[in-house]
Amino acid sequence: MILAQIRRLMRQEALDAYVIPMGDPHHNEYLAPHWQLIKAVSGFSGSAGVLLITQDFAGLWTDARYFGQAEYEIEAYGLELVRLQVPHQPEYIDWLEQHLTRAARIGGDLALFSIQAWQSLHARLEAASLELVPLDEFWTHYWLDRPAKSSAEIFVHPDKYVGEKRSAKLHKLKTALQKSPANACLLTALDEIAWLLNLRGADIPYNPIFFSFFWLSAERSVLFVELAKIGEELKETLRIAGVECLPYTAIHEYVAEQREPLIWSDPRSLNAALYGTLAPQNWLLNPSYIRTAKANKHPEECALIRARHDKEGLVWLYAWQWWEQQLQENAVGELDLVNYMESLRAEEEVYLGPSFSPIVAYGPNGAMNHYSPSKENQAMIEQGSLLLVDTGGQYLDGTTDMTRTFATGTPTESQRKAYTAVLQGLIALSRLRFPAGTAGQQLDSLARAALWQEGLNYGHGTGHGVGYCLNVHEGPQAIGTGASGDKAARLEQGMLTSVEPGYYLEGQWGIRVENLLLCVEDEKAGWLKFESLGYCPLEVKLIVWEQLKDAEWEWVRDFQKSVYRGYEKRILPHLKPWLQEKTFAK
Amino acid sequence: MILAQIRRLMRQEALDAYVIPMGDPHHNEYLAPHWQLIKAVSGFSGSAGVLLITQDFAGLWTDARYFGQAEYEIEAYGLELVRLQVPHQPEYIDWLEQHLTRAARIGGDLALFSIQAWQSLHARLEAASLELVPLDEFWTHYWLDRPAKSSAEIFVHPDKYVGEKRSAKLHKLKTALQKSPANACLLTALDEIAWLLNLRGADIPYNPIFFSFFWLSAERSVLFVELAKIGEELKETLRIAGVECLPYTAIHEYVAEQREPLIWSDPRSLNAALYGTLAPQNWLLNPSYIRTAKANKHPEECALIRARHDKEGLVWLYAWQWWEQQLQENAVGELDLVNYMESLRAEEEVYLGPSFSPIVAYGPNGAMNHYSPSKENQAMIEQGSLLLVDTGGQYLDGTTDMTRTFATGTPTESQRKAYTAVLQGLIALSRLRFPAGTAGQQLDSLARAALWQEGLNYGHGTGHGVGYCLNVHEGPQAIGTGASGDKAARLEQGMLTSVEPGYYLEGQWGIRVENLLLCVEDEKAGWLKFESLGYCPLEVKLIVWEQLKDAEWEWVRDFQKSVYRGYEKRILPHLKPWLQEKTFAK
Repeated sequence: MILAQIRRLMRQEALDAYVIPMGDPHHNEYLAPHWQLIKAVSGFSGSAGVLLITQDFAGLWTDARYFGQAEYEIEAYGLELVRLQVPHQPEYIDWLEQHLTRAARIGGDLALFSIQAWQSLHARLEAASLELVPLDEFWTHYWLDRPAKSSAEIFVHPDKYVGEKRSAKLHKLKTALQKSPANACLLTALDEIAWLLNLRGADIPYNPIFFSFFWLSAERSVLFVELAKIGEELKETLRIAGVECLPYTAIHEYVAEQREPLIWSDPRSLNAALYGTLAPQNWLLNPSYIRTAKANKHPEECALIRARHDKEGLVWLYAWQWWEQQLQENAVGELDLVNYMESLRAEEEVYLGPSFSPIVAYGPNGAMNHYSPSKENQAMIEQGSLLLVDTGGQYLDGTTDMTRTFATGTPTESQRKAYTAVLQGLIALSRLRFPAGTAGQQLDSLARAALWQEGLNYGHGTGHGVGYCLNVHEGPQAIGTGASGDKAARLEQGMLTSVEPGYYLEGQWGIRVENLLLCVEDEKAGWLKFESLGYCPLEVKLIVWEQLKDAEWEWVRDFQKSVYRGYEKRILPHLKPWLQEKTFAK
Repeated sequence: MILAQIRRLMRQEALDAYVIPMGDPHHNEYLAPHWQLIKAVSGFSGSAGVLLITQDFAGLWTDARYFGQAEYEIEAYGLELVRLQVPHQPEYIDWLEQHLTRAARIGGDLALFSIQAWQSLHARLEAASLELVPLDEFWTHYWLDRPAKSSAEIFVHPDKYVGEKRSAKLHKLKTALQKSPANACLLTALDEIAWLLNLRGADIPYNPIFFSFFWLSAERSVLFVELAKIGEELKETLRIAGVECLPYTAIHEYVAEQREPLIWSDPRSLNAALYGTLAPQNWLLNPSYIRTAKANKHPEECALIRARHDKEGLVWLYAWQWWEQQLQENAVGELDLVNYMESLRAEEEVYLGPSFSPIVAYGPNGAMNHYSPSKENQAMIEQGSLLLVDTGGQYLDGTTDMTRTFATGTPTESQRKAYTAVLQGLIALSRLRFPAGTAGQQLDSLARAALWQEGLNYGHGTGHGVGYCLNVHEGPQAIGTGASGDKAARLEQGMLTSVEPGYYLEGQWGIRVENLLLCVEDEKAGWLKFESLGYCPLEVKLIVWEQLKDAEWEWVRDFQKSVYRGYEKRILPHLKPWLQEKTFAK
């Protein structure tokens, strides 16, 4: 058994404990099979967790949304579930402090930690007189049936879908580097590299990106990548842009050989192993220049994003019409609806795949955050409760993400009241004008105020940045309750951000409504506003019209009208009355 | 001249520059004459500024609200005005970095800096290879006509006005100390000491507090204070509570003599001179326990605060009625109205004085933040513009602070629209329910959303904590745009916070409406809401009724009605029709 093997190796290395964080050497949100180490050791397939192993204890720390699943999955592997009090908090460190004695040695694989995470772990353990021992790919000694690396070919994001040529982007990065005290720049976040070079890949589920590092100095631009993923034509394309290709694994040696460098790298995604190849004074750990440049979408991309969301609306209309019709005769499996939406999206040539694990959640499933149906667990959609659908696609001309909540029968009063308050939150941000310089965290309570007034709330953030044919979750901006991290970033023109208030009644049903909002200039100089993207009608059965203020009612009317006008001539003619009914606003 | 004298002393001490921050050894917001060093050196009488003196330069850094006044005041003293780009930013440090050469020596009086301010200045200068030289009351050598110390007697805050006895407060502080790793606690914020001991004084304008330090350890409780301010009876009262009195100036020696102490002290108000009497490892620099305890008003105090605000409403009503009547015949000086309100407040036995410099600002003066009328600069109130009144009083049973904006004639459409949007901001917070744990910064945008919708905004915070017969500005909570400092503090039951949105049209007029809101438990467990204090009617002439949403209109109607019901039987009978007219809600 793998756990016994790990413990044997720990004894060899005189380790009292061994920590396995969820992650890969680039701090990706989703993990390629090749990097699903926690799953291999513990069976746990969730997206957030930490393993901690000693000679007489092995535990998985994860948060409430995974308690049931984790308990079931890890049992056979001999691990205990430790329930996180606060999601994403490093509570396992408290355990280490309480259970280990002075000078105990705790091992961790450097490559799996961002330098930010490693340093904060190190500081905590040092304060408790515990020793953090850096390990160099310790897993190679026990993870023997590791899945192979992805060999998906890297492809050019075609010019017609791209706002700015790679030569222009490279030039701007060079200028930013010249203005900084650093003499080189190392990009380690995969979406930043894909964006910079106008390339895409398929190494990671849901994210059209590829494993790589990118080096830029006055003399050289180097892409470190599995060379087999680069075709001859692409190699030539990169050569013309002045970009050399070196093997992915050559990065450590390359960095280590630099003479007196000062390398600008983002501590969020730079891993601790790579950081360790040089002395601390050789690193300038600062947010990446690309991070914000990438978030501020180019006007041409904004036009494509608008058009893509317009087409995406038809997917939602046909899907809605389909399950409604099916339901007249039979219950519909949640997964059937997922597959139906997938088949509609797949008709588009530019479609790459879902942008995240599709959520089709009926009844009580709607109250479980991040529930996705599978063959094993899916529920049947029937008449009589709420259906929460949150799906999106990766297209060459945009990334989509939308949520609608439908009533499959006659909704109750409390469902309607809650839905309307949730909708009021979406409307408040959709209608908003605000002075430039406003941070996402300042807007969060506007999305909650109507719910708060009813004594309701939701336990997740209000919105996240969305990439362009890139990660559906991206920074630097976010809208949420806390005031740190992405939520402290200013909203800027061209940023695409989700707004997705909700309300969940555990064991009963869930409500969420989400559009993507594009930040644009307001008529008043120095002010900003949002443009709503997301063209599926709102579920009028769930709206308590009297609860809406005049301006809110007008917003709903205009939104529904714009959906009708947008599709009346494009939808199959016999569905026009159906569309009319769905977009009706009292 | 004082500047020449300072430069002579600087040459003796080999100082290349000398910094004088605005402040005293307790970091008080308002300065006693004895500590108005900047005024003595530069003539500047504003509340925020820094002086920087070299052999060939002397400048005052202050912010936009003082530009005109400062230029005029400092001219004769030979100083230059340096205009701050961003209020409260230490921009003079940039000047030092740009104008001084490596290893230059910059002197600063330790006692005038909080340890927080001193350490951050030190870090900035060190990074620029400049030396910060600590000075020990350098001012004694050149400030020869220094005003005497206040000798105002310290008095007991009578039991009937106090929620919790000093013995109970001392006991809780002792418990907090026992739970901390520290073995002593040193209080340096004057309002915290006054609150803890249920004492008040009159050493500082507007703040009923007295100069002191307070020491607590397992063995001793010591109040360091000018002994002449303590009468025999008070001395005995303190003795019974186990509190010794030692001379104010004995604190340095007392602290220095401690053997292996770990002293818990708040870096916001601990001055750098006192800090320097021990090694850094002898200090536990943490927020004070009293700070939050003091902010959460005792239920008995809440009852007194309500009653005080109820009585305060009559002051406002009579003042309003007075200037309106005067205006029918003559213009009224702004200062006349200040004096009239003061005379009304002074009729109350428990009145101690204004809680801040009274603002009565007509027309363009209303657009100047923190304008206060004086004999020299006051304007005459006439019919035809807006009158902004922001005043408050210190009473033994509460501290008040309220703002109303009145139209002295027929207001314009744009004045009415702006006033209504400002009022909508006040209403939004007044009606709010929110989950416990919400920080002040989360609520800020709710007070701005209606203004934002019109493309309007205000450049100051939304609200500040208010003491109980103590400082009108207190922490830990505040409501504002930034997400740090007091604005990150959670709102808790019993906290009294102002909400004061506004809109200012420079050179024309200003609008602000302010009530104090008491944070109370909501009907729903774990939730909070606000109770409005501040019972002067809103100016109905300035309300655009159609602009209000239903719930907002109802709030205005109920508010006006409650004012009418509250005073109809208590106001002079012939004023009842006038009150009826003022509280009318369409």
